[in-house]
Amino acid sequence: MGTFDTRPRFILSAFLMNTSSHILGGMWRHPDAQQDRFHELGLWVDLAKKLEDAKFDNLFFADVAGLYGDHEGGWASLARKGLQIPSHDPMVLLSALSATTKDIGLAMTSSVVQSHPFQFARQISTLDHLSQGRVAWNIVTSVLENTHRNFGAKSLMAHDDRYGWAEEYVDAAYKLWEGSWEDDALKADKKTGIYADPARINKINHRGEIYSIDGPHQALPSAQRTPFLFQAGSSPRGSQFAATHAEATFLFAPHPQYVAKKVAGLTQNLQAAGRSREDLKVFAGLSFVVGSTEAEAKALEAEYDQYLDPHAIIAHIGGGIGVDLGGLDLDTPLGEVKTEGAQGVLEAALASTPGRNPTLRDLAHYRAKAQQIVGTPEQITEKLLEWQDAGIDGLNVINHILPGSYDNFIEGLLPELQRRGLAQTEYAPGSLRQKVFGRGDRLPENHPAAQYRDAFGALSAAHLEKDLQRAR
Amino acid sequence: MGTFDTRPRFILSAFLMNTSSHILGGMWRHPDAQQDRFHELGLWVDLAKKLEDAKFDNLFFADVAGLYGDHEGGWASLARKGLQIPSHDPMVLLSALSATTKDIGLAMTSSVVQSHPFQFARQISTLDHLSQGRVAWNIVTSVLENTHRNFGAKSLMAHDDRYGWAEEYVDAAYKLWEGSWEDDALKADKKTGIYADPARINKINHRGEIYSIDGPHQALPSAQRTPFLFQAGSSPRGSQFAATHAEATFLFAPHPQYVAKKVAGLTQNLQAAGRSREDLKVFAGLSFVVGSTEAEAKALEAEYDQYLDPHAIIAHIGGGIGVDLGGLDLDTPLGEVKTEGAQGVLEAALASTPGRNPTLRDLAHYRAKAQQIVGTPEQITEKLLEWQDAGIDGLNVINHILPGSYDNFIEGLLPELQRRGLAQTEYAPGSLRQKVFGRGDRLPENHPAAQYRDAFGALSAAHLEKDLQRAR
Repeated sequence: MGTFDTRPRFILSAFLMNTSSHILGGMWRHPDAQQDRFHELGLWVDLAKKLEDAKFDNLFFADVAGLYGDHEGGWASLARKGLQIPSHDPMVLLSALSATTKDIGLAMTSSVVQSHPFQFARQISTLDHLSQGRVAWNIVTSVLENTHRNFGAKSLMAHDDRYGWAEEYVDAAYKLWEGSWEDDALKADKKTGIYADPARINKINHRGEIYSIDGPHQALPSAQRTPFLFQAGSSPRGSQFAATHAEATFLFAPHPQYVAKKVAGLTQNLQAAGRSREDLKVFAGLSFVVGSTEAEAKALEAEYDQYLDPHAIIAHIGGGIGVDLGGLDLDTPLGEVKTEGAQGVLEAALASTPGRNPTLRDLAHYRAKAQQIVGTPEQITEKLLEWQDAGIDGLNVINHILPGSYDNFIEGLLPELQRRGLAQTEYAPGSLRQKVFGRGDRLPENHPAAQYRDAFGALSAAHLEKDLQRAR
Repeated sequence: MGTFDTRPRFILSAFLMNTSSHILGGMWRHPDAQQDRFHELGLWVDLAKKLEDAKFDNLFFADVAGLYGDHEGGWASLARKGLQIPSHDPMVLLSALSATTKDIGLAMTSSVVQSHPFQFARQISTLDHLSQGRVAWNIVTSVLENTHRNFGAKSLMAHDDRYGWAEEYVDAAYKLWEGSWEDDALKADKKTGIYADPARINKINHRGEIYSIDGPHQALPSAQRTPFLFQAGSSPRGSQFAATHAEATFLFAPHPQYVAKKVAGLTQNLQAAGRSREDLKVFAGLSFVVGSTEAEAKALEAEYDQYLDPHAIIAHIGGGIGVDLGGLDLDTPLGEVKTEGAQGVLEAALASTPGRNPTLRDLAHYRAKAQQIVGTPEQITEKLLEWQDAGIDGLNVINHILPGSYDNFIEGLLPELQRRGLAQTEYAPGSLRQKVFGRGDRLPENHPAAQYRDAFGALSAAHLEKDLQRAR
């Protein structure tokens, strides 16, 4: 299993959402659970401090901009279960936490549907300034029909069209982040009275299928310029997008063998995109139940199991793939329900129960239990090494309860990970990108965003010449 | 001038922008000025604390979402002067400050152009939760052509069409804030397992000229639901919009007589909209130079005057009304330059120099000097009473330098205002709206947003019935 001095550490993200019921449905009902207070700043300030003290790399906030698909014929049961409704904006929350933390990364999901790239790019740049380079963006296209209907569409856009939209969206944002302001444009020179040098600021004049954006970007270049990029597409088109754009991706996998297969595919796609395996960090979404003895861990697991709601977990999965799995017996085989467009999830669920035709109960098991590691610190660490060997660079630590699951992780498991060099004990200096890759604050030259560096200078010079002629 | 025990206090806002050069162009070059550090969180955290310790009601952040109109034939001079470019997002900044303050109001400008109402309403609700009801929104339609060109338009939309857009925008937002979630929808009941009662959550199914939004609102009702509303339209259509929607408005007036005339018009418009003068707080934008003697104040004024850049001030005004006033001698009469659509500003400038055909120099004077009060605390207080008598409820305190102008105000003038009961010495409890009006956290019944309270319940009940039928 490799010796401890040659292994890389795990990058640690707390996998969160500004809502009461994120992944493990029903757990908010646990007496110690505080995620039902998600709307209060104090819950998050305390948790962020705890995670920063423990040297977690990242607060990762998932998000949706609308209801999940129908469950039991409508959305009433989603509201009753608090299943990602209500949910509050992650960028606004992370902005608040930028003022109460110093080192931890601030990652958020934002869909191309919900915010215009000019506005989004400016908000991200603003936050990257306030946080001194700690912002990460998880690029999503929104799979939920209600999201699209909240933003003017009559229905959900076709899958590949959504990726075309995302390609244009990131392209426009890259132009603003990387190409609009050259590095030494800011002068702020009180003697000459020149605040910024217009010869080094460029309009981008983006003209695309969806967006027309003149620019210039309104914000100064921040430490990272383009935020650290997450993307987690699992379809062939999504995986290709991730291989082209993402610096980190994450998957929900039932076991390391499944990870190895996925990572092999990603590695091929990275090469096709002119990038390499070292350019992409792969995270696994996992939950943990740690005990000082195996019996203690199993007792805590049994306690949590009492509050897990398999119907909520099935509503989450079904609602995400647009298939109403509500009102059915848990022993219904998945083959008996319509599951078009759900290949990725079903493939993973199937992989969690090899040799069987999975049922709804297996589906719930796949999300809640197959991705859960229970045991002593030593037992869990040994299992994590298998995930690392399969290609996992980082952990998206899923919680049962807030903040208790992170207390359990930090007090129970983290000392063992740190003792074996598998978790950091101090933050590296610099931006989130520098902390994670150790090779600079900005995207490397083989990333598509890099093409816009110094790309608009000639245009800008011509524009200035015209300015001067008109001014004469 | 009235006795001191019957006068209301002034509501105090610090008039700010997340940029280096907001109103008083050139001042960033002052040796003590720190607004050139606007991109650093520390500047704002310290200033917010200072203003909160002084019991200011509000941090008011102006904003634009694009370049001002051309000056000297283009935008190069705007960048050189740092004239609101670069400028960073105010909502992201105020979210950060929500975590470092406790009582002070958090007001920001956001244009209907820059953010979809579904996204905007959710972000505002999120921030109103985090700040416990301290958010204010200054509704604007964007007068700058570049803003519209950053958001897909080929040119600036006609003025009255922009107000039609704003009417639909606030209408959709009111539905989300006031109508989507009924008051007792949140249960968070661990015993029954019901997080929210779907019978009390409503889709809004907004179908308008511009927006189609299903809902429901994703956020829980916040303390204020609809944020405290600022609007400062000065055209007839703009003034009518303010009278219908705003809880506070602000004007740049050269003297109290001009205020009195404007307030009379606003009062008429309020009555026409079924509201009254008590429903609207009127702020004046004023800057102050305080000295312990008149001579000391005048010396400080003379020092500031050295850094004021009249060309920057003219660029700001001309760029805002879409008229390039650059490259002209300061003694050019305004009548000789094309100034269509600029009635409001010219009327005010003219009022600042009665009996003369104003020049560009008069225009700069109107914005920089006519709205500046210089003197001892006693002298300034006497002048402020004239503004109060003319109808001013609050002051938008414009700064020359950050944070020095607020130090000067707080140390020099504020003790005198507080001694005379003209400024508060403690915060009232509750939300921003409660603090300002003293009559509850929510909009009163005569506000147009109130029509959406409990307006969607019948729809929702029908929807639930359908849900249940399908689920059976």
